[in-house]
Amino acid sequence: MNTNYFVLVPIVIGLLAVAFAAYLARYVLSKDTGTPAMQKVADAIFKGAMAFLNRQYRTIAILAIFAAIIIGLLLALLGLTTKSNAIDWNLGWHTSLAFLIGALCSGISGYIGMYVAVRSNSRTASAATRSLGEALMVSLRGGAVSGFLVVSLSLLGVTGVFLLYGGLTNPAIAPELIVGFGFGASFVALFAQLGGGIYTKAADVGADLVGKVEAGIPEDDPRNPAVIADLVGDNVGDCAGRGADLFESTAAENIGAMILGVALYLATKNVGWILFPLVVRAFGLIASSVGLLWIRPSRVIEPDKAAGKDPGEIAMQQLNIGYFITCGLSIIGVFLGSYLLLNGVGVSTSSSVPAWVWFGLAGTTGILLSIAFVYITQYYTAGTFRPVREIAAATLTGPATTIITGIAVGFECVALPVLAISVALGLSFFLGSQVTILNPNIPHVINPGGIFGTAVATMGMLMSCAYILAMDTFGPITDNAGGITEMGGGAEAVRDITDALDGVGNTTKALTKGYGIGSAALAAFLLFSAYLDVLYTYKHNAAVYTVDLANIPVFIAALLGITLIIFFSSLAIRAVGAAAKRMIEEVRRQFRANPKIMAEDPADRVDPDYARCVDISTRGALRAMILPGLVAVLTPVAVGCILGPQAEAGLLMVGTMGGIVIATFLNNGGGAWDNAKKYIEAGYLRVNAEGEMVDRLDTSGTVLGKGTEAHKAGVVGDTVGDPFKDTAGPSLHVVIKLLSTITLVLAPLFIALHP
Amino acid sequence: MNTNYFVLVPIVIGLLAVAFAAYLARYVLSKDTGTPAMQKVADAIFKGAMAFLNRQYRTIAILAIFAAIIIGLLLALLGLTTKSNAIDWNLGWHTSLAFLIGALCSGISGYIGMYVAVRSNSRTASAATRSLGEALMVSLRGGAVSGFLVVSLSLLGVTGVFLLYGGLTNPAIAPELIVGFGFGASFVALFAQLGGGIYTKAADVGADLVGKVEAGIPEDDPRNPAVIADLVGDNVGDCAGRGADLFESTAAENIGAMILGVALYLATKNVGWILFPLVVRAFGLIASSVGLLWIRPSRVIEPDKAAGKDPGEIAMQQLNIGYFITCGLSIIGVFLGSYLLLNGVGVSTSSSVPAWVWFGLAGTTGILLSIAFVYITQYYTAGTFRPVREIAAATLTGPATTIITGIAVGFECVALPVLAISVALGLSFFLGSQVTILNPNIPHVINPGGIFGTAVATMGMLMSCAYILAMDTFGPITDNAGGITEMGGGAEAVRDITDALDGVGNTTKALTKGYGIGSAALAAFLLFSAYLDVLYTYKHNAAVYTVDLANIPVFIAALLGITLIIFFSSLAIRAVGAAAKRMIEEVRRQFRANPKIMAEDPADRVDPDYARCVDISTRGALRAMILPGLVAVLTPVAVGCILGPQAEAGLLMVGTMGGIVIATFLNNGGGAWDNAKKYIEAGYLRVNAEGEMVDRLDTSGTVLGKGTEAHKAGVVGDTVGDPFKDTAGPSLHVVIKLLSTITLVLAPLFIALHP
Repeated sequence: MNTNYFVLVPIVIGLLAVAFAAYLARYVLSKDTGTPAMQKVADAIFKGAMAFLNRQYRTIAILAIFAAIIIGLLLALLGLTTKSNAIDWNLGWHTSLAFLIGALCSGISGYIGMYVAVRSNSRTASAATRSLGEALMVSLRGGAVSGFLVVSLSLLGVTGVFLLYGGLTNPAIAPELIVGFGFGASFVALFAQLGGGIYTKAADVGADLVGKVEAGIPEDDPRNPAVIADLVGDNVGDCAGRGADLFESTAAENIGAMILGVALYLATKNVGWILFPLVVRAFGLIASSVGLLWIRPSRVIEPDKAAGKDPGEIAMQQLNIGYFITCGLSIIGVFLGSYLLLNGVGVSTSSSVPAWVWFGLAGTTGILLSIAFVYITQYYTAGTFRPVREIAAATLTGPATTIITGIAVGFECVALPVLAISVALGLSFFLGSQVTILNPNIPHVINPGGIFGTAVATMGMLMSCAYILAMDTFGPITDNAGGITEMGGGAEAVRDITDALDGVGNTTKALTKGYGIGSAALAAFLLFSAYLDVLYTYKHNAAVYTVDLANIPVFIAALLGITLIIFFSSLAIRAVGAAAKRMIEEVRRQFRANPKIMAEDPADRVDPDYARCVDISTRGALRAMILPGLVAVLTPVAVGCILGPQAEAGLLMVGTMGGIVIATFLNNGGGAWDNAKKYIEAGYLRVNAEGEMVDRLDTSGTVLGKGTEAHKAGVVGDTVGDPFKDTAGPSLHVVIKLLSTITLVLAPLFIALHP
Repeated sequence: MNTNYFVLVPIVIGLLAVAFAAYLARYVLSKDTGTPAMQKVADAIFKGAMAFLNRQYRTIAILAIFAAIIIGLLLALLGLTTKSNAIDWNLGWHTSLAFLIGALCSGISGYIGMYVAVRSNSRTASAATRSLGEALMVSLRGGAVSGFLVVSLSLLGVTGVFLLYGGLTNPAIAPELIVGFGFGASFVALFAQLGGGIYTKAADVGADLVGKVEAGIPEDDPRNPAVIADLVGDNVGDCAGRGADLFESTAAENIGAMILGVALYLATKNVGWILFPLVVRAFGLIASSVGLLWIRPSRVIEPDKAAGKDPGEIAMQQLNIGYFITCGLSIIGVFLGSYLLLNGVGVSTSSSVPAWVWFGLAGTTGILLSIAFVYITQYYTAGTFRPVREIAAATLTGPATTIITGIAVGFECVALPVLAISVALGLSFFLGSQVTILNPNIPHVINPGGIFGTAVATMGMLMSCAYILAMDTFGPITDNAGGITEMGGGAEAVRDITDALDGVGNTTKALTKGYGIGSAALAAFLLFSAYLDVLYTYKHNAAVYTVDLANIPVFIAALLGITLIIFFSSLAIRAVGAAAKRMIEEVRRQFRANPKIMAEDPADRVDPDYARCVDISTRGALRAMILPGLVAVLTPVAVGCILGPQAEAGLLMVGTMGGIVIATFLNNGGGAWDNAKKYIEAGYLRVNAEGEMVDRLDTSGTVLGKGTEAHKAGVVGDTVGDPFKDTAGPSLHVVIKLLSTITLVLAPLFIALHP
């Protein structure tokens, strides 16, 4: 069979996945939307979210068109002026068009995913009045629309542009022409994640500080003018932002792996190396859909029948089973893909074991790494383990020790993920390097089998992407469902269900961040190798494969790479403060201007102007995202132009390392503070007569709950952690991938300036 | 003239500098020690400091002897078993002996420096009763004893071991035999800085939390059992710890530069390349002593004669003039040294400008970098500039925003120092590479002129080391003088002087940290190059000069390097918490057990048991320093043994970059919080009717000073910053140099395991 036909696999399965997302959307939208009171709140959230999204995507579209024109002109000009025939002036429009398609696909998947997510919240709240199982299914499927759209549109987009640029007739050239797609996706993701992250925290701080602290009204109270903005924020940060982040991950990883495949295709004339990433991703979609469909209300034991079991535990267990099903099928899928496409033409192995087994094992390594990340993240952010309890104990001595302990925990929690990544990287490289490519034309400095092994591991890890994203978007949906139940006056038993699902959502959001950083870390080596391959195709000099830290420009660029990460984090954290300030002023102004909002008698009350708060938060966030975004985009461009392509590789690699470490610190530190506060609020913090913390189940201890000094210290920790874990940390995921895609796109420019 | 004779320069000047330190000590010790009340406090501090130092150095001595035996045996065994004649079994005892001499010299300079420093505090307090000028001179000269001893003993030690190991008969081999000296210095510095840093903050937290907050007594009150431990802590952290840190810097930098000189000596047969670092350091001692001697009471305008001028400003101006004199003379010195020793045998330059001018300019780059660091550090930590005011404004909205803003400032402040380092590194490399070495035997992959240029820049920067250290130790002396004046019941006017000098001391301490990290960063490239030179001498393969990040083991080791930095910081911060906890318990116990400490009538009062607090803090700190210390020492050993010498270079480089960035964040972030609190305490925080901050000189604003909510938030920030800037940050300086010295010493082992 002609291996070319395998290109039908991603197309057919991609289209089926889109149809599957449509089916899930229809399922969710067919559900009832609850009482009129719930509908009113849900409508306000829907309008606010769409208003933000419309304005945000309009801003991003302007920036993207501007960027596309600059890149296109620059590369076309380069093609016209450079004597080398390696750069053709067509590269300009090819890259620009791919950039715009990538940006558009990312935008569409974010937009539709958000649309369904903010339509799922009131339906989840309504389902919760009937049963836990139904609420779980509605919220998870609502989230899955986003998850499947993101992965399938990324897959279809990459495959489509590959075919458009002659992928089947000239497979060696096409992958480099489509790098623009990845950069387009990165570009949208950067601003979507930054804008969303700033918005959500500015609204949160505004609602909490003026509403809860100054006016003394509870969380999610309809009298708070910022309450809708706060609920909108959960969607735009976690749903739209993280969706764009993982859209970019999957696109960049696919393109990078295809570029690596080109070298192997040229050596073996087997186009399977190039198509493999697309096929494996398609198999991942099947695995994810089976895992998702496994979860049904009939499998959920309702809380009234489960003696003493927490509804959150029941729901989490279901999600875990679905995840393990997805991982199990993914392992089968990666072996099958290897068998079909990497079956031995032009390769030999060091033993009698065939090549596809080695690559299948490398893919399994990546899948196991994703499971390891799930457990490590849970250890550092869940209240049942040492780190969170340590922070909770530190709240007893005030906010200063709470912060110090949280930072110590955040710094500490970098070690295990890095060790896991190191092992996975080393192991998948070792497994891949058992396969030798029989061609003398490959520069001897590289080990193509080993590098492809790390690429297969990354593909393996990202196979469960759609499922993970479904769990992530599940977070804001259940959070909103909780808010809607609260504001719509739901019954106690219903609130128990929505609160429990909200708690599960916090865990899944943390897991997704861990997964995001883990896959970005694993992908880094593959993208980096792809960049060196691109340099080689232009320069035909094996020296490009060496990124020598003993070389002064490389050393300086590497130092600047890690500094960029820290500096960007500073700007992102600061942006939240700037946007929050406007929000605080507006909420204060409304309370002053319209005292009827807080009227004693509920009959006299008028609704605050929610839309204005949404609008101000939107403007503030969009304005604040520009500076950090530009710094992230322009620094690698400047370094590459001034110090050259090899130095740029140093910036890319060490910047990525710094990003992995700092993002893990910010995400897990922030998550641990958040859960330490929740630990106290759940009544788990108990002290003995000497004021020392005792076990949370030790009934002889006194509970220190809401309103105590310890709780106040816990709130300080949570507030500090908010911009860490929801703005700066997730934005860093995007930045490290942006570094890769921007260098892939601009490699010809750097080479032209430093021939 | 035979160039060998130049070895007399460091010996003669080094001995003169020791004599100069003795002269300064005699000057200080001849001063009167003040009233009996002051003497009583000073004696308690002296006893506490010496008790800590004795116990600490005993612990370090045991660890050092243990380490020396292991290293000696390991290397001797290697020499006996390896067939290559590159490693000789003599290397074992050579390295062990040098290690012990290095450790001993570091210990002696720390011990004597501390002895004089804790004898200078009451003399400064007494001098302050007479005039600002005399107080300034006593405290600065007291600090200078430490500064000159550290630099001269480091110089004499390196020169002595060089001669002992046949430096004049076989200059090519000796530098590699003395790397043990640098490792010995690093080893002592690590534990001295860690132990001192943990001690000082544990005592500080204990004194503040129980004394100030729980018992409600003022700072430096004699009723507080931890007050002496707190005053002792300032000495052991800033004086002994920083002294050991810079002893290591100067030793490691000298040895590394000599190793680089070996390659140039072999190419040109001019031994001047090897002796140059020693001669330049000696010239730096002269420059520093002139700068120091310039400061005399007769030049100080006393506050009562200076209309409206703050005594702190007057003192700072004097210190600045002395520093500029030192820098100016250093520039002359580095040109002179280049002229005498690097005068053109076997080299050519790209223009008619002779080699010594290029190297003189490279040295000047380093001196200018040290000045740039002084200004950058001041900008980020002094209350007159934007960053500190920003944090002060954030205190108005509580502790959470204070912390968030402080972290944003801390992250931001990394950018300028890194840019300055990058420019200095690139420029000195460029200047040095104008000199070409005429010898075909040097591997073409390296640029010996350029690398030596960066080494000369580092030497230039470290020429002012003795002066900088004098200003640093001035800090704890004036801090103690303030405490002694307070506890001894000094007059208002005297307190004004000691408080002003204490404020100056805070600035100089921050400057020294900036200088420490700047010189460590600049030295990193030189030490790294020296390591590659050492690898080359064993392997005779030019491939060792490439540290290729595209190589999986190098990539993984690099990622582990930056993780080590973060993880070590976590352990160091956590160690403070553990040691502070014991202190808090002891202070509480004393208040409970002996109520007479707090008796209403001063006549009924008894003194608390200061010695017990000192003892507990000492034990706690020494126990807590072991784990982070072992992690820092064993990680590079493990990585080098498992992943090999090239990967080790990756760990070294990227770990160093991470160390520079994280240490700058910790130091400057902590310093900014500290000074934001001081800004509020000085009455500079003013708000308008809307509660927004206005200019500190805007008299229409209301002052929010001590006891306000804003001040409480500022105190939280300061407390969070304490372990950052006084424990983790300074310890990281040592860790990054330790990475270099440990790799230099163990290079033969890594090579033997990975031939």
